[in-house]
Amino acid sequence: MSAGIRVTVWNEGIHEKELPRCQAVYPDGMGKAIGQYLEQQSDIASVHYSELADPDQGLSDAILDNTDVMTWWGHTAHDKVTDANAERVQKRVLAGMGLIVLHSGHMSKPFMRLMGTGCFLKWREYGEDGEKERLWVVDPSHPIVDGVPEYIELPNTEMYGEPFGIPQPDQQVFISWFQGGEVFRSGCCWHREAGKVFYFRPGHETFPIYFNEHIRKVIHNAVRWAAPVRLADGFIQGNVQPLEKME
Amino acid sequence: MSAGIRVTVWNEGIHEKELPRCQAVYPDGMGKAIGQYLEQQSDIASVHYSELADPDQGLSDAILDNTDVMTWWGHTAHDKVTDANAERVQKRVLAGMGLIVLHSGHMSKPFMRLMGTGCFLKWREYGEDGEKERLWVVDPSHPIVDGVPEYIELPNTEMYGEPFGIPQPDQQVFISWFQGGEVFRSGCCWHREAGKVFYFRPGHETFPIYFNEHIRKVIHNAVRWAAPVRLADGFIQGNVQPLEKME
Amino acid sequence: MSAGIRVTVWNEGIHEKELPRCQAVYPDGMGKAIGQYLEQQSDIASVHYSELADPDQGLSDAILDNTDVMTWWGHTAHDKVTDANAERVQKRVLAGMGLIVLHSGHMSKPFMRLMGTGCFLKWREYGEDGEKERLWVVDPSHPIVDGVPEYIELPNTEMYGEPFGIPQPDQQVFISWFQGGEVFRSGCCWHREAGKVFYFRPGHETFPIYFNEHIRKVIHNAVRWAAPVRLADGFIQGNVQPLEKME
Amino acid sequence: MSAGIRVTVWNEGIHEKELPRCQAVYPDGMGKAIGQYLEQQSDIASVHYSELADPDQGLSDAILDNTDVMTWWGHTAHDKVTDANAERVQKRVLAGMGLIVLHSGHMSKPFMRLMGTGCFLKWREYGEDGEKERLWVVDPSHPIVDGVPEYIELPNTEMYGEPFGIPQPDQQVFISWFQGGEVFRSGCCWHREAGKVFYFRPGHETFPIYFNEHIRKVIHNAVRWAAPVRLADGFIQGNVQPLEKME
Repeated sequence: MSAGIRVTVWNEGIHEKELPRCQAVYPDGMGKAIGQYLEQQSDIASVHYSELADPDQGLSDAILDNTDVMTWWGHTAHDKVTDANAERVQKRVLAGMGLIVLHSGHMSKPFMRLMGTGCFLKWREYGEDGEKERLWVVDPSHPIVDGVPEYIELPNTEMYGEPFGIPQPDQQVFISWFQGGEVFRSGCCWHREAGKVFYFRPGHETFPIYFNEHIRKVIHNAVRWAAPVRLADGFIQGNVQPLEKME
Repeated sequence: MSAGIRVTVWNEGIHEKELPRCQAVYPDGMGKAIGQYLEQQSDIASVHYSELADPDQGLSDAILDNTDVMTWWGHTAHDKVTDANAERVQKRVLAGMGLIVLHSGHMSKPFMRLMGTGCFLKWREYGEDGEKERLWVVDPSHPIVDGVPEYIELPNTEMYGEPFGIPQPDQQVFISWFQGGEVFRSGCCWHREAGKVFYFRPGHETFPIYFNEHIRKVIHNAVRWAAPVRLADGFIQGNVQPLEKME
Repeated sequence: MSAGIRVTVWNEGIHEKELPRCQAVYPDGMGKAIGQYLEQQSDIASVHYSELADPDQGLSDAILDNTDVMTWWGHTAHDKVTDANAERVQKRVLAGMGLIVLHSGHMSKPFMRLMGTGCFLKWREYGEDGEKERLWVVDPSHPIVDGVPEYIELPNTEMYGEPFGIPQPDQQVFISWFQGGEVFRSGCCWHREAGKVFYFRPGHETFPIYFNEHIRKVIHNAVRWAAPVRLADGFIQGNVQPLEKME
Repeated sequence: MSAGIRVTVWNEGIHEKELPRCQAVYPDGMGKAIGQYLEQQSDIASVHYSELADPDQGLSDAILDNTDVMTWWGHTAHDKVTDANAERVQKRVLAGMGLIVLHSGHMSKPFMRLMGTGCFLKWREYGEDGEKERLWVVDPSHPIVDGVPEYIELPNTEMYGEPFGIPQPDQQVFISWFQGGEVFRSGCCWHREAGKVFYFRPGHETFPIYFNEHIRKVIHNAVRWAAPVRLADGFIQGNVQPLEKME
């Protein structure tokens, strides 16, 4: 990764156009809010912005060929992503691409395919101001929490609660406390064949969470953690000859 | 589970009809070889035999409603299982049904959907007699190995080798050694929402592996391990009110 | 396990003698409160009560020879348990004995030895009445939650908070929410060689938590889950001859 | 880690002095063979060499204060490491120091303390030339296998076999095949509080395994993976006040 990590920020891009509260909070769009901190980092080679409305839904092979790690934000149009594109993203992850799934992306097609589970959860949008969330670090050895405080407090957010329909994470990094009485596994790592997936709960279209410095640091750390690894000569799956002499 | 576990043995049922060597080894079919030991156990309430050629591919709601744990053997016709049936099995597992996936079932649609990965591997069919496999127990505390020797030796079998395209098992129970020089994670447990999945590598259509007493014991233990668990009142996923008073 | 599980309830037994509030809540001692529900279960063969003040601290080989699963409650005298006894318990677990570590047992010598970590945490005793805890099930497939509601609410308890200095559990079963703003991994499973360990947070010397029906059910389920498994002929560690012909 | 990783190579240093075959293979000592490749890497700030015969057994606070990651090789004198020093190393790991335990270090005091298990295994020294081992990558997404082939073949080595008395690894990276018929979990990762531990099987005092380019690459990758992570302000364990207003 000495040449730097090439990131694609995939953003549904609908709430920004249709929801005044979202426009007010994210005047340049949610994708930009997610990517602009990454653009400033020395280990990030490039940040490409893709949206659902783009040609090929922003998921062409040309774009994916230039993506080491993809972040994914979607909410209201998960079903608009074509099955072919969802499968393309899934296969890229299995071949090495990192995937950072944010907030309501838990029901996105690529994430659900990669998890193999329903990925559903409890949720609550409480009034205009939402409620308080506190993300506690439970694995202080994990590179994703480097430079992060022992908890991140978000005063206004939507609630997600357990049971969250996911496989037990390979590495559990954050667990959230919610004002209304629920908990949630809010930072979860999975290795999937040659690729890595991080689910990170924070973020909502009407709260300025992607401007929070700690949230940004976690996403940057996650991009670094999820960057592809390459075996020297790849690996073989298929019909093979014996390595040992057979009698 | 005091009333006993209701098992459905799902078997593709094609090699038995078309392959003389398979007929010779499994004259009553592979399904029967897998199920007959279970029929004799006091904690098994019933064993139902389903085949691909059955109405609804043997996967009707009526059958699934009476299934606590399903075993799955398929090889040559994975693609003939309809997507709707594969999804039905997947959803049953997520709702609590146990699933024991055997041998070449690693590429079956229900297993691939539940894993979210490619599930491919190295393989080799070596001559008429195959080669030696030795399954080593690596978790002696696991209920699936109760009463099993520290390794199970199969003198004649097909090879499966790493890297096996699966999520890291929640519990790794067996690892196999192969004569030709490969290793394989051959007994793997996953929890998936309310259900449990066990992949067990042994078995092939032309070797009498499902008559092996140790293999049968493992499958029986796995059925017990995978039997459904029920929360007192189920659980809620969806929109919920706060449990705490909100100011 | 057809003959039933032999349980030893190990209890420090000091607060009951010295602390009036503990006497008021647990007039027959905490050990009895933990064991009496188990005594009534048909799959429990026997319940033996051991205390720190007993000969051999209640941990003689004769007692351990008749123990399939041990529950452990201690708090004020962890250092009084001899190193030899702590090591004896550790070795029994590695040889197959189940261990259910309750509440303040997180700093007991046997648990700390088995974890290999500091096992420390945040804590708070809030006034006379403590504060509210809500244990959420996060793995609805686990046998330990069979028959349990999706959350258990304890109105009055002491707080334990993250980061809890433990290895990531092999299976995470419960996560707690606390009124004061913290979360905690409150139901944790580990396989350790031939044995299994369950840490279960609820319980305190001045709150009647071990009379709670759900808490009792979880402890009973945990005893069943932790019951020993036996390989047919044990297993070999040490110097061995090759199984294959060497050239 | 921008300033580079400070490594301490801890080596027992006895076989080199007493065993002619070891001297012949490692004329500059085993520590040097392990460290010299690291010395050449741009992301390694320093390599310090410690031996058992050094003052404070090479484990003084001054040395540990300048160590981000320690590699550990020992075999014949595990019991000579003082309990105080073993505990000091354990605590450093829990506080963030990375630890790479090599080969026969599986029975070293620091490793055994960190695992909490017996760490024993099958073993065999077969004649003068040993036997063949093949380490298979089973997690191609892991940073420890970056640039490594899908298997590493060692023509002459000592055998280690399952069951290996360790906790299931948090991340299983390599599994070994042995000529004599055994398998072994030969590359294992654990997170332990703020620190990380990697056990890597290859290496022996009479085979030139630490000169193997792939083995060296794995050790270098492991050092990078195990490098400490720091929360912004550390974390609190102990008595805390509520974060929420309590009624």
